[in-house]
Amino acid sequence: MNEAGMDLTLPALRPLDEDARLQAQARLDSLTKPVGSLGRLEEIAARYCAITGNVSVPSLDAVVFTLAADHGVTAEEVSAYPQSVTAQMVKNFVHGGAAVNVLARHAEASLRLVDMGVVEDLSACAGLLDHKIAYGTKNFLREPAMSREQALQSIRVGMDLANAAYADGKNLIAVGEMGIGNTTSSAAVVSALTGQSVEKVAGRGTGVDDQTLKHKVSVVEQALELHRPSSSDAIEVLTTVGGFEIGGMAGLMLGAAACRVPVVLDGFITGASALLAVALEPRCRDYLIASHLSREPGHRIVLDHLGLEPLVNLRMRLGEGTGACLAVTLIHAALKIYREMATFEEARVSGALP
Amino acid sequence: MNEAGMDLTLPALRPLDEDARLQAQARLDSLTKPVGSLGRLEEIAARYCAITGNVSVPSLDAVVFTLAADHGVTAEEVSAYPQSVTAQMVKNFVHGGAAVNVLARHAEASLRLVDMGVVEDLSACAGLLDHKIAYGTKNFLREPAMSREQALQSIRVGMDLANAAYADGKNLIAVGEMGIGNTTSSAAVVSALTGQSVEKVAGRGTGVDDQTLKHKVSVVEQALELHRPSSSDAIEVLTTVGGFEIGGMAGLMLGAAACRVPVVLDGFITGASALLAVALEPRCRDYLIASHLSREPGHRIVLDHLGLEPLVNLRMRLGEGTGACLAVTLIHAALKIYREMATFEEARVSGALP
Repeated sequence: MNEAGMDLTLPALRPLDEDARLQAQARLDSLTKPVGSLGRLEEIAARYCAITGNVSVPSLDAVVFTLAADHGVTAEEVSAYPQSVTAQMVKNFVHGGAAVNVLARHAEASLRLVDMGVVEDLSACAGLLDHKIAYGTKNFLREPAMSREQALQSIRVGMDLANAAYADGKNLIAVGEMGIGNTTSSAAVVSALTGQSVEKVAGRGTGVDDQTLKHKVSVVEQALELHRPSSSDAIEVLTTVGGFEIGGMAGLMLGAAACRVPVVLDGFITGASALLAVALEPRCRDYLIASHLSREPGHRIVLDHLGLEPLVNLRMRLGEGTGACLAVTLIHAALKIYREMATFEEARVSGALP
Repeated sequence: MNEAGMDLTLPALRPLDEDARLQAQARLDSLTKPVGSLGRLEEIAARYCAITGNVSVPSLDAVVFTLAADHGVTAEEVSAYPQSVTAQMVKNFVHGGAAVNVLARHAEASLRLVDMGVVEDLSACAGLLDHKIAYGTKNFLREPAMSREQALQSIRVGMDLANAAYADGKNLIAVGEMGIGNTTSSAAVVSALTGQSVEKVAGRGTGVDDQTLKHKVSVVEQALELHRPSSSDAIEVLTTVGGFEIGGMAGLMLGAAACRVPVVLDGFITGASALLAVALEPRCRDYLIASHLSREPGHRIVLDHLGLEPLVNLRMRLGEGTGACLAVTLIHAALKIYREMATFEEARVSGALP
């Protein structure tokens, strides 16, 4: 932070290590299976090596960050659930009863819960990292969601979280979120950054009906008309129509990439964060792994824009980091293949016929 | 087996328990997430209950059966690898160095290796179940691959294996195979049972070039012309152009379904077995879970014919049970969601707005 707190020093990101990728692929090709026959598991293992710059693949020590915040735009009745559900779900996370708790345990990943800006005071909540920037964003249909300083702060918090995780030995970072109203904010961010129409990127979120969806589209269109954020100024987009968890996850991605730690995306909202991170530092894109394709229609647009292909499509649309957790189990599998399989030579298996 | 050993008593299969499916879905709808937002994980959990007829979902105790056998048609040079690789890979399985070993461990599934008819004598191989029916099938371009009695025996072996696994407490059975040449046999089986052209169902297997693929198609076409197996006589199809592991896996599916144990398919070859099992007893289809979509082009045709949708598409084409193992990890996840998540009431989270 500079003296005025109004600037952001972005980390320098290295290009991926293509030598490591080639060496990793050579090892994969020596294993007892036809060349390339494990498809995307091989691609993931080689990419992991290219990101870390190391062909000795360690045991995964993954962490899932679930960032929570509230959104002032819920005043416009754009969600199927009341705003109070954000805080209620955070408490559910803390008690271990939500889907992301179950799937993070399944993925052998630790879960870090972060209050980035929930409306309720959660400071007494044990097990929750308190990085509350404000008690929810403002209603961006009326005014900017946050100040420029708050936008920068949200990104810095994410970068700091990534640095701390790296210092703690984490070698895979997955991101997820909770925030009633955040598919509305994300639709605005995605439309602003990709130039796609709001109608194409906005979806049903937690499950709104046709009428509410139409209203949601109109609210986002009016907000973008009001603020006219420049598509080339990611901070302005975050400031005017974003959310604290959306900025936080963008910071996590930038911070992780600076530490050469791969980042696993979740659904549409994490995709909005990824667009922000990549707008700030295009090289960040190479450090991102797309987990699943959400049913939220804008998610495909985001992934196409980023040039990322999701690992699975299970018609999920929950968020929290649930899709990312499933991808973590596949990444575990890919790295175990890399580490544990025998080579043709070790197993004395004949190669392909000449 | 009747006195002549020439008959097969098929188990009676019950229809799925639709009440259990509805009760399971009601529980899923009560959990702290928007209704249906976990997509296919919810579908799998509800289907598991419908198959077992029990809405108390147990901890999974999964087993992967990898059945190995050789194929006389390899004499026609239809594979990229020599026939000796079947036995070499079985030894690799026994020593734990193959992909299916790694992925079965990852899926917390036990692995049972079965010699259904490898050319080499493997009786000294510890850790391998010896159900060798013969030292490989005959070259079906010249004569039937096996006798009718051997075909029935291969199915009976599979049914017995399933029964033993059920008696042993296994509540999920995944199938996989190893056998140089078995994509050629499977292409013949699939073409015979679906009526699709050989050109559409035959693929590159372990990775043959254009010329060998063309030759492979021609070999299968000639064999089907020679034997003309009736599409309504699954045993005749298995006898004339099948394989011992292909019959064995069909038997595993029928036996598992009779015990109300769900079966996880792998790729194209297990798909040929599934077509045989479903031809023998159509209700078997409801007990099958499609794991992944293989790159072998005939696999899509098989799954469409069965009306099954694969869980993932990771561009894999290895066999052994590797794709099935990845699906087992997703089924674990689905059942943990069902068992471990808190309900709205338990977590005191508000429901959707009226």
